[in-house]
Amino acid sequence: MIQRLTVVGVGLLGGSVARAARARGLAREIVGVGRDRGRLEPALRDGTLDEAVTELRAGVEGADLVVLAATVDVNEALLAEVWPALATRVLVTDVGSAKRGIARVADRLAGASAARFVGSHPMAGSERRGYGVARADLFAGATVIVTPTDASDPAAVKEVGRFWEATGARVTHLDPETHDRVVAAISHLPHLVADALVDAVARFEPAALDFAAAGFRDTTRIAAADARMWREIFLANRDALARSLTVFREALADLERLVDRGDAAALEAALARIAAVRGGLS
Amino acid sequence: MIQRLTVVGVGLLGGSVARAARARGLAREIVGVGRDRGRLEPALRDGTLDEAVTELRAGVEGADLVVLAATVDVNEALLAEVWPALATRVLVTDVGSAKRGIARVADRLAGASAARFVGSHPMAGSERRGYGVARADLFAGATVIVTPTDASDPAAVKEVGRFWEATGARVTHLDPETHDRVVAAISHLPHLVADALVDAVARFEPAALDFAAAGFRDTTRIAAADARMWREIFLANRDALARSLTVFREALADLERLVDRGDAAALEAALARIAAVRGGLS
Repeated sequence: MIQRLTVVGVGLLGGSVARAARARGLAREIVGVGRDRGRLEPALRDGTLDEAVTELRAGVEGADLVVLAATVDVNEALLAEVWPALATRVLVTDVGSAKRGIARVADRLAGASAARFVGSHPMAGSERRGYGVARADLFAGATVIVTPTDASDPAAVKEVGRFWEATGARVTHLDPETHDRVVAAISHLPHLVADALVDAVARFEPAALDFAAAGFRDTTRIAAADARMWREIFLANRDALARSLTVFREALADLERLVDRGDAAALEAALARIAAVRGGLS
Repeated sequence: MIQRLTVVGVGLLGGSVARAARARGLAREIVGVGRDRGRLEPALRDGTLDEAVTELRAGVEGADLVVLAATVDVNEALLAEVWPALATRVLVTDVGSAKRGIARVADRLAGASAARFVGSHPMAGSERRGYGVARADLFAGATVIVTPTDASDPAAVKEVGRFWEATGARVTHLDPETHDRVVAAISHLPHLVADALVDAVARFEPAALDFAAAGFRDTTRIAAADARMWREIFLANRDALARSLTVFREALADLERLVDRGDAAALEAALARIAAVRGGLS
């Protein structure tokens, strides 16, 4: 049981952390931190938060678990800002989609406090944003990747994992480097490709958008996501994203070559192989 | 009211045409044609078909509406095969995803019979296949693009449109050339890109597939579709697909350049513009 949980950034993910903790009785007190008090009001009114605080250091005072749930770049800045003020052995995690950057910040800060940091990445979300779409069950059945480094306190890694499991998630561990390569492939690359797809249709044949059916809608759903948030994810993971893009371009060129050549048998074989990979997922 | 509706190819689309016609009382008799009688049995047993026929010419005998619902290449061959046997003024349509090819076949055949052909493309479907996933309401609320040419009989165009409207669809008209350019952008390009995405992840970081969340699943859902069917769609529309791919590669390169440069402001502006286009769809 957490005595005092502080969530910094009460949007889709932070709000869902707070709602899950409230619904499942994981914390005695839940504090929300945000720059704009008005935006925290709905979570106070519905009983998710016990306190709404606009000053970071006041918000984390007395907390035993702090969850940073702003954008990737802001989480890194918040961690550096709050670290010296943290009480002994406070546990800090984040919910960002790229993990090498914040792990570097945490490693650099380590000596300056007895607080402990372990990164997390819940593989759950939505193309929508804000507390209004936060859900107590967002993490139920989802995978949360916890990203310890060699310097991480093993007890802290366990505690973070137990917290996520208590929200209903399945927890797995990857080092930050491996994490960033994996999510470049499974999340950041698909996102950039979906963005390019929407842009390509708008450039090539904008009238075609009137004919968008389920296929196009599903394929490009994530392209409606928050631009500010994704800007930082792409920038934070740009090297791994660039490597995955090289492989993507090769895969696309290979398919295009089969189509151009009219090589029906090889094209069908390639499509069948790909359909089997995709079919194996669900 | 159609006296005798013949559906050639009783899979997802053909089966849904038959089921919609049965459910809405659009035809007195419904005949299914397929090479494999066993595959037609479920539709006979559940009362969707009145007759199941394996011989094409027998199947279309006495029909007033024939719907070709095999793959794009097979529909073209079937049209040529059946045309001379059709009774005066029989109306023939198809449900293929590329329309220039079958329109050329129809134009070439026109003088050989008084039958009338008008192409159709219901923008509805699934990554799954077969009669088992056919639904009476597949076309309800969907768009069906009817694709007349200058040579089409205006009365036939109206009749085909009325049939689709009776299944619950919204009908719109495009000439085959425009149709193929529009669907290259909104359907065939996204499909090939989703295929390349699955292939790229499998090549770059296969372990990442274990972390596939809703984003990747939605983005690549169509990559599980039938390889034989999509082989023919890509080949039939390869020129328009190639042009849309050129634009897609440019759009992707533009985004990648902003990421590589670390141009946060321009990247966010581009993502916001794209999110607005995508957000405008739903």
